[in-house]
Amino acid sequence: MSTPLFDYTLGLADDALVSAQRMGWWISRAPELEEDVALANIGLDQLGQARNLLAYAGQVEGAGRGEDDLAYLRDDREFRNVWLVERPQTDFGVTMARLLVFAAYQSELYAALARSAEPTLSGVAGKAVKEVAYHLDHAARWVVRLGDGTEESHSRMQAALDAEWPFVDELFTPADAGLVEQGIAVDPAALRPAVLDRIGTVVSEATLSMPDVAPAIGGGRRGLHTEHLGYLLAEMQHLARSHPGATW
Amino acid sequence: MSTPLFDYTLGLADDALVSAQRMGWWISRAPELEEDVALANIGLDQLGQARNLLAYAGQVEGAGRGEDDLAYLRDDREFRNVWLVERPQTDFGVTMARLLVFAAYQSELYAALARSAEPTLSGVAGKAVKEVAYHLDHAARWVVRLGDGTEESHSRMQAALDAEWPFVDELFTPADAGLVEQGIAVDPAALRPAVLDRIGTVVSEATLSMPDVAPAIGGGRRGLHTEHLGYLLAEMQHLARSHPGATW
Repeated sequence: MSTPLFDYTLGLADDALVSAQRMGWWISRAPELEEDVALANIGLDQLGQARNLLAYAGQVEGAGRGEDDLAYLRDDREFRNVWLVERPQTDFGVTMARLLVFAAYQSELYAALARSAEPTLSGVAGKAVKEVAYHLDHAARWVVRLGDGTEESHSRMQAALDAEWPFVDELFTPADAGLVEQGIAVDPAALRPAVLDRIGTVVSEATLSMPDVAPAIGGGRRGLHTEHLGYLLAEMQHLARSHPGATW
Repeated sequence: MSTPLFDYTLGLADDALVSAQRMGWWISRAPELEEDVALANIGLDQLGQARNLLAYAGQVEGAGRGEDDLAYLRDDREFRNVWLVERPQTDFGVTMARLLVFAAYQSELYAALARSAEPTLSGVAGKAVKEVAYHLDHAARWVVRLGDGTEESHSRMQAALDAEWPFVDELFTPADAGLVEQGIAVDPAALRPAVLDRIGTVVSEATLSMPDVAPAIGGGRRGLHTEHLGYLLAEMQHLARSHPGATW
């Protein structure tokens, strides 16, 4: 049973869940032990946001599905995350460009959602806003360090930003008009100027240029995904699906 | 330049570092979101212990190597961890059997090392002893839940414990006699009864049997490792080694 509120909450939850999975990929692969710890903690913050939001989505649905059912037993067409977070990140610059974009978006989103008329959503957002401020700061420092670094790090950081940019637009896909009118959901389009301003400040300090590239098609909020999400879910869901109903 | 204290500290550090890497493998693969978070936090605790110990090892050596150099630029023959922690863990029962053994060992080790005559080692151990108490409790609860569960979970938990058992003996490999006499290092052999007692209590409550299998050859403290460590280091060290001396 899909309702606008269920779908909206899943969109928030799946962005955080899928991003957490991608962040977890870095565990044991980061270039410094300190960074290993930082990326793990960022992933854990996102996973915590996802768990709270999935638990709430389950209540909204009223069908008895808990956070684990929603995380492990949905197919890719039932996921509502944006494309930005689902693609693989095999390059440290790409990870930081993406985190810059995502954390800038989440910072504005959660700040606005903290004033939601729906108390659970406002509670989750109010807690998360402090977490994503740290994520944004962490990404910004790396983007500046790499962008305003050597010639090679500069060109790689610019290439990473260009590669992520087609996926920025989808973040501002309109939410259900009814939910926005009721003050429950945040209108993503309204966040665009502030998000781009946050990113622009960092890009400028990093001596990089704001990319000028066409947006990707997107469609994540309607369950249309790249093939990469399928592989991610295969790994994430394998154990839970191999033992259906296991009580451990 | 290898000295007994440098080698001893590396043994402590590498056990924690390699175990943290293996724990990180579970990120995104655990059977429940809550468990994903728990295993990630356990891995982060171990990584924190490793970082403190590697930083101290670098000071002892006096050659200017920092934690990152020691983690990312040593070959497998220079690692001093035991075999228990370096083998892949592709089964949840194996992970919990291993964590039970390792955390029981670390609990006794750090409790004794907290009284070391060497203040840095005693400080690291004093902090870590609280962390590993949680790891042990976490592992114990899973071993009991699975061992005293269904017929299948019981037999798989017993098989996992049997599979880890050959690697228990190496934990008690004697440390440098001089360091033990000076009250700097802990004599691992002296820990054996208490460690086996801790494990035995859990095994009994889980309705499992203490395995009766011959010990593996071991040799990790002398730099002799299974081939698995090579693959683990390849993944862990790839990025740092691809950009030698990168200042990021």
